[in-house]
Amino acid sequence: MPLRSDWSAEVCPIRRSLDVLGDPWVLLIIRDVLHGRGRFDWLRDNLGISEPVLSRRLAAMVDADLLSRVEYQDGARMRRGYAATQAAAELLPILQELALWGERHTEMPEGGGHMALIHEACGAETVHGAVCSECGVELVAEQMTWVKPWKSARDRLQPAGTLH
Amino acid sequence: MPLRSDWSAEVCPIRRSLDVLGDPWVLLIIRDVLHGRGRFDWLRDNLGISEPVLSRRLAAMVDADLLSRVEYQDGARMRRGYAATQAAAELLPILQELALWGERHTEMPEGGGHMALIHEACGAETVHGAVCSECGVELVAEQMTWVKPWKSARDRLQPAGTLH
Repeated sequence: MPLRSDWSAEVCPIRRSLDVLGDPWVLLIIRDVLHGRGRFDWLRDNLGISEPVLSRRLAAMVDADLLSRVEYQDGARMRRGYAATQAAAELLPILQELALWGERHTEMPEGGGHMALIHEACGAETVHGAVCSECGVELVAEQMTWVKPWKSARDRLQPAGTLH
Repeated sequence: MPLRSDWSAEVCPIRRSLDVLGDPWVLLIIRDVLHGRGRFDWLRDNLGISEPVLSRRLAAMVDADLLSRVEYQDGARMRRGYAATQAAAELLPILQELALWGERHTEMPEGGGHMALIHEACGAETVHGAVCSECGVELVAEQMTWVKPWKSARDRLQPAGTLH
């Protein structure tokens, strides 16, 4: 990972996590693959990232056991995409806490709107990232829908290993 | 903040959060100021960061309303340090989820050990970052002690605005 220094052998587990996650593209890529959207072209276009930067991040994330390579059919061709590993799926609480913090402490742009984190198992909106604030159950990706007012479709998250 | 591009006007609140938090030094500095350790020299030595890089980060974090400048007495001199704002204190769930994830998914180095997140209000160890997994109360910094086996002293976190 392209960090200032190697933090993989630090005693502090926060610092070791940031060694893997400290590049902001990494968490954005995980956000997308947790929706099952791990095709290279889709990530490039959605993230607005250059192809070489994206390629380097994806390779490093496979090495760090955040992504697995998955083949998919594209017309007559087999192509390779990326899916979240279990380690990446367990970043759901961090992604959701980032969403909650961003709503409280950054300015919503024009065309934006409140992104509700819906726990499909109980139907309620949760205001915590790891455990449903309504029913108390631990949250997993495949039971979450993030309702994004700037998109028409409801956006259900997917279990680890999914590639659409 | 020194990012590839400006994400402050993105509709996704995760991406807006990463615009402010996406540099790994930022979350490490917040970890330290939430212990009340916001003196410039202390941060420089503890983080192992160069003075110019630290100065730039601190100034950007004041601009982003993550840190406030606080004066303190150093012998006969008044010196300036940094304390967490309320916005920074509300990053506690993210820091604690990073610690929990790091313990599960990175390798503990020699000399390390399990960092327990103790909720002083009920005395239990929590395995969630935002809400105590034992008593269900929302976690705030001034009620948390992170027990670090690689340090002899227990390490109680501090409310926003604290500088030791």
